[in-house]
Amino acid sequence: MNVQPIPTVSERINEIRRLTAEIVNREILPNENMLWADVRGSDRLTDDDRAQSRKLRDEVRAKVRQAGLWAPHLPTEYGGAGLDFLELAYMYEVLAYATGASSLFGVVAPNSGNQSVLVKYASEDQKQKWLLPLIDGELESGFSMTEPDQPGSDPRSLKTTARRDGDEWVINGHKWFTSNGLKADFFIVMCRTEEVEGTADRNAAMTQIIVPADAPGVNVVRGITVWGRPSDHVEIIYDDVRVPLENALGERGSGHQAAQDRLGAGRVYHCMNSLGQMWRAFDLMVERSLTREVHGGPLETKQFVQGMIADSYMDMQAARLMTINCAEKMAAGQDARTDISAIKVFVPAAFHRVVDRAIQVWGAAGVSGDLPLSGMYQGARTLRLADGPDEVHRILMAKNVLAAYRHGEKGWDFGN
Amino acid sequence: MNVQPIPTVSERINEIRRLTAEIVNREILPNENMLWADVRGSDRLTDDDRAQSRKLRDEVRAKVRQAGLWAPHLPTEYGGAGLDFLELAYMYEVLAYATGASSLFGVVAPNSGNQSVLVKYASEDQKQKWLLPLIDGELESGFSMTEPDQPGSDPRSLKTTARRDGDEWVINGHKWFTSNGLKADFFIVMCRTEEVEGTADRNAAMTQIIVPADAPGVNVVRGITVWGRPSDHVEIIYDDVRVPLENALGERGSGHQAAQDRLGAGRVYHCMNSLGQMWRAFDLMVERSLTREVHGGPLETKQFVQGMIADSYMDMQAARLMTINCAEKMAAGQDARTDISAIKVFVPAAFHRVVDRAIQVWGAAGVSGDLPLSGMYQGARTLRLADGPDEVHRILMAKNVLAAYRHGEKGWDFGN
Amino acid sequence: MNVQPIPTVSERINEIRRLTAEIVNREILPNENMLWADVRGSDRLTDDDRAQSRKLRDEVRAKVRQAGLWAPHLPTEYGGAGLDFLELAYMYEVLAYATGASSLFGVVAPNSGNQSVLVKYASEDQKQKWLLPLIDGELESGFSMTEPDQPGSDPRSLKTTARRDGDEWVINGHKWFTSNGLKADFFIVMCRTEEVEGTADRNAAMTQIIVPADAPGVNVVRGITVWGRPSDHVEIIYDDVRVPLENALGERGSGHQAAQDRLGAGRVYHCMNSLGQMWRAFDLMVERSLTREVHGGPLETKQFVQGMIADSYMDMQAARLMTINCAEKMAAGQDARTDISAIKVFVPAAFHRVVDRAIQVWGAAGVSGDLPLSGMYQGARTLRLADGPDEVHRILMAKNVLAAYRHGEKGWDFGN
Amino acid sequence: MNVQPIPTVSERINEIRRLTAEIVNREILPNENMLWADVRGSDRLTDDDRAQSRKLRDEVRAKVRQAGLWAPHLPTEYGGAGLDFLELAYMYEVLAYATGASSLFGVVAPNSGNQSVLVKYASEDQKQKWLLPLIDGELESGFSMTEPDQPGSDPRSLKTTARRDGDEWVINGHKWFTSNGLKADFFIVMCRTEEVEGTADRNAAMTQIIVPADAPGVNVVRGITVWGRPSDHVEIIYDDVRVPLENALGERGSGHQAAQDRLGAGRVYHCMNSLGQMWRAFDLMVERSLTREVHGGPLETKQFVQGMIADSYMDMQAARLMTINCAEKMAAGQDARTDISAIKVFVPAAFHRVVDRAIQVWGAAGVSGDLPLSGMYQGARTLRLADGPDEVHRILMAKNVLAAYRHGEKGWDFGN
Repeated sequence: MNVQPIPTVSERINEIRRLTAEIVNREILPNENMLWADVRGSDRLTDDDRAQSRKLRDEVRAKVRQAGLWAPHLPTEYGGAGLDFLELAYMYEVLAYATGASSLFGVVAPNSGNQSVLVKYASEDQKQKWLLPLIDGELESGFSMTEPDQPGSDPRSLKTTARRDGDEWVINGHKWFTSNGLKADFFIVMCRTEEVEGTADRNAAMTQIIVPADAPGVNVVRGITVWGRPSDHVEIIYDDVRVPLENALGERGSGHQAAQDRLGAGRVYHCMNSLGQMWRAFDLMVERSLTREVHGGPLETKQFVQGMIADSYMDMQAARLMTINCAEKMAAGQDARTDISAIKVFVPAAFHRVVDRAIQVWGAAGVSGDLPLSGMYQGARTLRLADGPDEVHRILMAKNVLAAYRHGEKGWDFGN
Repeated sequence: MNVQPIPTVSERINEIRRLTAEIVNREILPNENMLWADVRGSDRLTDDDRAQSRKLRDEVRAKVRQAGLWAPHLPTEYGGAGLDFLELAYMYEVLAYATGASSLFGVVAPNSGNQSVLVKYASEDQKQKWLLPLIDGELESGFSMTEPDQPGSDPRSLKTTARRDGDEWVINGHKWFTSNGLKADFFIVMCRTEEVEGTADRNAAMTQIIVPADAPGVNVVRGITVWGRPSDHVEIIYDDVRVPLENALGERGSGHQAAQDRLGAGRVYHCMNSLGQMWRAFDLMVERSLTREVHGGPLETKQFVQGMIADSYMDMQAARLMTINCAEKMAAGQDARTDISAIKVFVPAAFHRVVDRAIQVWGAAGVSGDLPLSGMYQGARTLRLADGPDEVHRILMAKNVLAAYRHGEKGWDFGN
Repeated sequence: MNVQPIPTVSERINEIRRLTAEIVNREILPNENMLWADVRGSDRLTDDDRAQSRKLRDEVRAKVRQAGLWAPHLPTEYGGAGLDFLELAYMYEVLAYATGASSLFGVVAPNSGNQSVLVKYASEDQKQKWLLPLIDGELESGFSMTEPDQPGSDPRSLKTTARRDGDEWVINGHKWFTSNGLKADFFIVMCRTEEVEGTADRNAAMTQIIVPADAPGVNVVRGITVWGRPSDHVEIIYDDVRVPLENALGERGSGHQAAQDRLGAGRVYHCMNSLGQMWRAFDLMVERSLTREVHGGPLETKQFVQGMIADSYMDMQAARLMTINCAEKMAAGQDARTDISAIKVFVPAAFHRVVDRAIQVWGAAGVSGDLPLSGMYQGARTLRLADGPDEVHRILMAKNVLAAYRHGEKGWDFGN
Repeated sequence: MNVQPIPTVSERINEIRRLTAEIVNREILPNENMLWADVRGSDRLTDDDRAQSRKLRDEVRAKVRQAGLWAPHLPTEYGGAGLDFLELAYMYEVLAYATGASSLFGVVAPNSGNQSVLVKYASEDQKQKWLLPLIDGELESGFSMTEPDQPGSDPRSLKTTARRDGDEWVINGHKWFTSNGLKADFFIVMCRTEEVEGTADRNAAMTQIIVPADAPGVNVVRGITVWGRPSDHVEIIYDDVRVPLENALGERGSGHQAAQDRLGAGRVYHCMNSLGQMWRAFDLMVERSLTREVHGGPLETKQFVQGMIADSYMDMQAARLMTINCAEKMAAGQDARTDISAIKVFVPAAFHRVVDRAIQVWGAAGVSGDLPLSGMYQGARTLRLADGPDEVHRILMAKNVLAAYRHGEKGWDFGN
């Protein structure tokens, strides 16, 4: 990928972009197939191949550490690169250019998200017991929030309860799409604890509780097939699961806020991630246009293909400028809720269009495993229903605008 | 599915629709998960489960034979139901409502397409040797046409050659997306034979040749991953493969016509197949709207969801009427090439939109294996690049229209 | 326009199409500019020009009468051609091909619609007094329904009242977009008469009343500028307007039904009208593509233009088949309410797209008065908010579908 | 309109925005109808009304001068406000909020564009003779470039010639859409002068020549009807028109560059102008949503309307950020050609969508003269074919991208 210094951002961000792109361009892209050969599980793989894959990944990880970019989402005291919000956002864009690159930089969902939650909400004891082994790779974790019978768009409707009984929580509930469920040693489970306290604020009722995967009553029903492939997203029934009271994360009732933390900055990260993938899809589309011959000439000379390139250029520009503008507002402490909803809706749709065109330009190869496009296509689609479906965010945007007018403003200020 | 008599079609078509829908509604839909449990390969399946799956499928097949609907694409003399073009088209719509139903009626690609080719083009000897065992399920077959280095939209650009050497063909070439490649006992391979004859008509150069999968030089390089899953679409290198001259199908040079046969009626069948799936997606969407509660009421009361239902209704109506209108023209022997291109482009796009909305209404469940929607979504996308990408068919439509004007007509006649 | 016999319609319809197209092709299209020169009011027009315009129109009208096609919407006993619903629908498509053609066939809104209402609802006395002079052109009429403060999508919300006082109605209310308001001798005014009767059925409250334009209290406030041009759509305040009781049309409370009559078949007529205009726009687009040279060749060789032709072809086919399918259901007495809403939404949108592309292909000429495209563009846009905005009809479609499912059907039947 | 200080722009820009918005909000918006009553030519206008309109306009102009904002596009030595490129761009956005506001600030096309051309290219004598009286309002001017038989997208294809004969130019050609043609005292005419010099560079062949409207041979054929209204865009035949050699503007052959000047910055100005109008449409849409009651509540509570607000918000943000980003690149002297084409295509399309939704929310009032929306709708459509149709700019974007890849870059750099 072609990454040049941006005049309007900090030197540090340009440095991070440059270093990250160097590793992506030199170490990852040329080895994209071999790096993950063992994970993809081709049937024709030798033991040597597998060993080489692992070795390659270790080598890349070493170079990432050398560049000071390991675990960019973690503070330096936890062995991370200690990047701030904007630095991280710009880095994620570059990382997303190559499939799987982020995992070679120590960012693996849901562990990385759970690490950030633990850094912010865990007590010293909890950090010792769960966070440090999680960072060291000795433990795996899952995040258990979504429930099959409740709309994901309304976290406050969750029904899983944690009832206090002596010095234990007794957890009952039905979750699904709990990530990493087949490998996790523990889950961070979003529970309703209001029965204990009683409170008028429904948001104040949610608490995150650490639940070991081997606790009696943790019943992993099945791995869910997603997009036709078995996934590590599982359905779990929590049936009178008992954990010590000290497994609660942060203040009782802080669960909603923690989820918002995860979602707030997370939405910008998701968008930068989408942008990096769009960038890759765009490059693939143009490259193919330059090299593929069809009836009477290379694809690049066909107006339909030129139109796809132009429309993708506009999609990228619009999506990118909106995301960066939103991120800058957030970094400046301004209210960016309307813009967060806007990028939540706009960017995945633009992502979808760009990837769709890249697939069309590549033909059958575009949906094959030889290119990362089919995964992007599914990913873009999933984003439109994840973290609150688009519809909810369109309503939120409108309500924010309407509220501004209702509160005596002469109209919306588009100047900022 | 709710299938009522259609006043404007033949009694036979209504009868076929009714009988097919009965089997789909009673035998297949209630058992959709169990019917294919073994094929999907869940890790939690017992041997009993597997046996039950097979038994269920056998029972359905028996009912299909009882209803006289087995192998609807084959003439009765080959044990088929002997349906004509329109009957088949209407039946495929109903069959497509349930995932996998067509295979329980004896229609399994690419075997069924190959059977039709053999019925039309094979000599008596070839029929004995290849067709009958294929129909009996003793042989499996593949279709080997697409090449990685040539645009699929231009069959005449294919580069695989069959050179005559004594009483043998010597075949050399590089194909991919050869269907059923991992199981096939033989392939029907589209070859260029012009080197032998020399001819000005590029279309006349193509011949289909039967190649046993175990012939020396048939090198199956790999199964291609499609939409993130291993598939039985393979990449094959034919390296000096020798087969007897009598393995050629039909007249030398008839290959292009055979491919057109396959594509012509096939495009209507594909569209009816898409329509059946849209119908299913539509029913799923409405059902979910009626039962899912969200903020302040069931989904069906939300304008966004009502809009999705209405837009899908229009998409279904438009796609269905265009397809049937095209099929009726074809059945009446009229020139329907512009309309074939029109449905080739319009129907998959409408299919995509309807499934996309159904997924959105179902949320995460919509992309899970619990519903057939994610497969439909990928299928709709693939259709836009298969059988000639949309762009080629948009050009064809325009050229047909422009030619009509140029040939002295006062304008296009939209009356028919 | 190129009109050929349609095999699937009655001979009478084909005859009507042929005769109408002949007049359109021979008499109207070649004289399109001169026919209306005086009405358009160019400043360079001589008195001779004006006289010639009038003469030309009279000659066309004579030919229409000769062909037996005058006033096709009226029964023969009122001097019309006595066409039935389907005949009229097919004829309107052909008429719409040429701007203003319908008025040369005796169909001039709102007079024609008012005539149909009077034929159906007027008493013998009313017919003598209002209908016959209206048909003879001795009177002009307006239709006065829409109110500025009520949504047009809900006729039952209308606030204009007619209070009974002795043997008179006393009418008070505020209307706008009352058509033909500057020339009309009388208005048919939609009034709420429930104050007199009291009734639970809000639909039963509306009555149409004939109001002479010169009745005291009929205050035409202004002509409304529409699309930047002064129009004969006026704003009227009815201020204690008194008319005799016998001016009520039909049963008291029949007003809602009469409006539905007007809208029901009217929606199909509107769509056929749109289709005729799309046909014209399509022909204009193709013609320009064949003749206009740009960089490196005629427009027809450019993929962007080919794409516009192809997409317009699909739009025409889809819109046309849906409209005809709906009309046939209505003619057969089937419930077509969902389809009426579907074409109400789909056809104007398709109309807009086709005209939009034709304009783009013509460039600046496309929005000039040299072509009928700019008027079509505005007309298509207006249709999306007239007769109930699209949003209301999308809700109606969904509610019809949802009701069908709720009433125990297994799903929607797309077979019919 | 609600205009707040923008933290990221200069104080001067914020000052200009504030002052301009004050005049728009206080002086123009409350008087929008009365200000132009005489120009619109209502038939019910008294002489007093007309006088009041003129007086109101004079008062606003006086306040504009007081605020130091008169003729913002002109240098101070010519009596203008002397704004630079970015200042002007931001000001045009605010001005566009109110219909006709720019003319009250001394910016009236095509005079203002001609003034800028004269400032840059005219000799001292020419300035005395044409520019100063034009600024003082003593002369009116037109711009005469487009020809009916040549695509506007290729200025080099223009056919109008100026042949040198002694000390005169002899001009022959056929133009249309010559702006202000009915009032102009002189035209700036784009002529091909290559016959005189001969040159390989086709761009070098064009020269702008000042032609008095009353010169013999200047034959104004007609005013062109645009969007159904007579306009001052005229068709002109130049038939052996003779003007002195000194009427050529700038170097011979500088015409193409002058046109590019006009178009380059002009495209940004056009977009800021569109953004101001979108802003107004957005405010109107939200205002209506808050106040209009329909079935069961105000429009703002309906998801369809909320969706329109949200989608318009995203359209505004995307269009605005892309335009400003492009303008900033231009102000910084960077190559922004790809982005100029991007905003040329993206912004009018977004403008169209926002206005379209505002019209839908307002219903019939939306297309009436009571609101500025119908004019915006036509304007947005016209922009898609003016200054080079969208198709040409989509090709340009693609070619720029393709060239970057071809010149050895690893891919497109989306970072800037």
